[in-house]
Amino acid sequence: MSEKIKKYVLPDSKVPTQWYNIQADMVNKPLPFLHPATKQPLKAEDLFPIFCEECSKQELNQTDAWIDIPEPVRERYKNWRCTPLVRAYGLEKALDTPAHIYFKNESVSPVGSHKLNSAMAQVYYCKEQGITNITTETGAGQWGTALSYACSQFGIDAAVYMVKISYEQKPYRRSMMHVFGAQVTPSPSMSTRAGKDILTADPSNNGSLGTAISEAIELATQTKNCRYTLGSVLNHVSLHQTVIGLEAEKQMEMTGEYPDKVIACFGGGSNFGGIAFPFMRHNILEGKNTEFIAAEPSSCPKLTRGKFEYDFGDETGYTPLLPMYTLGHNFQPASIHAGGLRYHGAGVILSQLLKDGYLKGVDIDQTESFKAGVLFAKSEGIIPAPESCHAIAATIHEALKCKAEGKQQVLLFNLSGHGLIDLASYDRYLSNDLQDYVPSNAELEKYLAQVEPLQP
Amino acid sequence: MSEKIKKYVLPDSKVPTQWYNIQADMVNKPLPFLHPATKQPLKAEDLFPIFCEECSKQELNQTDAWIDIPEPVRERYKNWRCTPLVRAYGLEKALDTPAHIYFKNESVSPVGSHKLNSAMAQVYYCKEQGITNITTETGAGQWGTALSYACSQFGIDAAVYMVKISYEQKPYRRSMMHVFGAQVTPSPSMSTRAGKDILTADPSNNGSLGTAISEAIELATQTKNCRYTLGSVLNHVSLHQTVIGLEAEKQMEMTGEYPDKVIACFGGGSNFGGIAFPFMRHNILEGKNTEFIAAEPSSCPKLTRGKFEYDFGDETGYTPLLPMYTLGHNFQPASIHAGGLRYHGAGVILSQLLKDGYLKGVDIDQTESFKAGVLFAKSEGIIPAPESCHAIAATIHEALKCKAEGKQQVLLFNLSGHGLIDLASYDRYLSNDLQDYVPSNAELEKYLAQVEPLQP
Repeated sequence: MSEKIKKYVLPDSKVPTQWYNIQADMVNKPLPFLHPATKQPLKAEDLFPIFCEECSKQELNQTDAWIDIPEPVRERYKNWRCTPLVRAYGLEKALDTPAHIYFKNESVSPVGSHKLNSAMAQVYYCKEQGITNITTETGAGQWGTALSYACSQFGIDAAVYMVKISYEQKPYRRSMMHVFGAQVTPSPSMSTRAGKDILTADPSNNGSLGTAISEAIELATQTKNCRYTLGSVLNHVSLHQTVIGLEAEKQMEMTGEYPDKVIACFGGGSNFGGIAFPFMRHNILEGKNTEFIAAEPSSCPKLTRGKFEYDFGDETGYTPLLPMYTLGHNFQPASIHAGGLRYHGAGVILSQLLKDGYLKGVDIDQTESFKAGVLFAKSEGIIPAPESCHAIAATIHEALKCKAEGKQQVLLFNLSGHGLIDLASYDRYLSNDLQDYVPSNAELEKYLAQVEPLQP
Repeated sequence: MSEKIKKYVLPDSKVPTQWYNIQADMVNKPLPFLHPATKQPLKAEDLFPIFCEECSKQELNQTDAWIDIPEPVRERYKNWRCTPLVRAYGLEKALDTPAHIYFKNESVSPVGSHKLNSAMAQVYYCKEQGITNITTETGAGQWGTALSYACSQFGIDAAVYMVKISYEQKPYRRSMMHVFGAQVTPSPSMSTRAGKDILTADPSNNGSLGTAISEAIELATQTKNCRYTLGSVLNHVSLHQTVIGLEAEKQMEMTGEYPDKVIACFGGGSNFGGIAFPFMRHNILEGKNTEFIAAEPSSCPKLTRGKFEYDFGDETGYTPLLPMYTLGHNFQPASIHAGGLRYHGAGVILSQLLKDGYLKGVDIDQTESFKAGVLFAKSEGIIPAPESCHAIAATIHEALKCKAEGKQQVLLFNLSGHGLIDLASYDRYLSNDLQDYVPSNAELEKYLAQVEPLQP
């Protein structure tokens, strides 16, 4: 029997009991959120009407590096955590690369992605506060599914606004949410003022995360005992996702190796931050020089071509002003299949870290991402989510660089989810029916011109 | 932190290195297969034109209780094995039952079901023999997906005949096979004589596993260097699936409990035999009295209403005559959504064991199965395959019996696969658009009358 070890899983005794809050260790702290009307820095209390209190506090917590995972959340994490760290021998062989490729397999969660890590936490905190109804948005549907399941676990009613293009492309995601008992509405919808305004101006609007967020916030703030939850971008979401990287750190110890490069796809930043922050801590505190690579779609290039400015998190302007890399909150991304990456801005923490040089963004074309996904499926068996395909494409790029340069680097990427609900996209790719779309500079400038000039 | 342990996973050192061949321990050995023309008992060599040699030998091996799992197969098993044994606390709570419910989660395999356990083995043996092309049939699509992935792993071309009703109901299953590079044809098709004959007689024929098997065997026997593979029914398939029960046995030891009842759904018997045989061994050899419950659809009730006779395994009559519980090889099951359970006969080993009283069959209505699936999804997070829903329904029945009688029994069921590719069925269930179908006695007699009277 070969001695090759394929999977590394932590014993229960080593599963993390705290999340890691990188804000506490950052050299340059994130700039404050600003109130949209007064332009004054926000306090946690200002967020209470939108988010539950505990998440609001976590959002602005710049002092505590470690935050306890509540016992009922840890209890539910047991359903799927610790997720496996897998050595991708099959992919290495297919690429004939000297690189050692590892991936953290978040696709084994009940709902098929990392999103459940934060959904369980947010719904738990809402429940503790006596909240009875939760609204949210979903792009690819991964977050909406996770939130729906978490709500069914804690006995809370869920209303999900799903980006219309995804609602149409991914009927099975809708079905999953229905199985878990949630109400699902395609966005933009006529059920909110925000949705009506957009549909009036553009009846064939495909929707965007920004729009769906506006609708969900509007419903939450106008409903009794209801709060809004978000699946990415915000600090408390990345915080909950650090359970990925904290596990991976201990699992990498089991391999006897340490990653030279940590790679994840990038929409708002939650799965990227989740796997990256625990490793990045060692760059910040101990001067390690691990490289962090965020793979975004070339059609929505906020990291490589966006501007670092104060901008809204949503289309309509209900959110606070956030200091972030943005393409403009009105940016309309192309109808690519990686719905979870079609967001105009990068999370506040990650934006600051990008500005300070702790990570870099790379742009991946849609067709390249699916090509990478098919190779991964054939070599490792798992059909990856279109979002995760971007991380795989970036990893393949690095692995081939290792081959060209004869370097045996250790690459770690996050497989944020599987693509079993996205097979229609694969069908289109296999039928040569997918296009790449890269916005022109003029187009990007048009949207950025609409951002109020408020230099951070 | 609560001391409740949710998941049990074996360390690599305890993962089984052999399969268990229950034929060696059976008190009454299975009766011989008969040659369809001569009606004489078959030798392994007689099967060589259809199956690879090693599988043919395993099929008729009644002497070796333990058979080594080849190293390349064990290497690939590592991708997903050991699968978790999970304590279904959520389901127990939802049912308010004193029963302890465990399930073996085979849905975590790369292709989403237990089928890969045998696909890897069969394709490996074919490869070793120098076979270059493999044909097979698939009902629900689970087996076809597994076979396609295994073929992509070993560099073999796969041609899959997919039961037409499933081909139409489950386009994503098709897509998965395409991603893995297989050729997929809806059955009955015009590409074989068997298919043509059926379509000529009944142009709107929905297909059945029996028909798809005929087509796949016909193609295999008429193609150079090609063999046929089957995903259930046969003895060597159940043999490979015993890795499930062998793991589960050791995992149950970790819990400190032993199952009073072992439950699985039943199509041809592969997932049932897989989890049951290692436990049943103790009934046979040590007089333990664990109860074994096979959950079949009430629309295809071979265990409870079939006859124990010599019958063909396929529609056209290409296979040997098999001594089994059958509804008749021309039986046309209703178009229920659990495509994997729409087979007319029970595997030969299981038929003999049923005759000898080692297991019992229970009939589950389609709507009851989905009701059970939705409850399981809400309480445990995993949306089960329609086939697995039958096992869950039977488990719920037993758990409620425990509640009524105040008994704290230990129930173990096999979650053979997830239902993420079957969400259209859930949609129909949630829209009250599903019906139950139970064949009349007259209908059953009509099909059984066509079986040649050759009493075993």
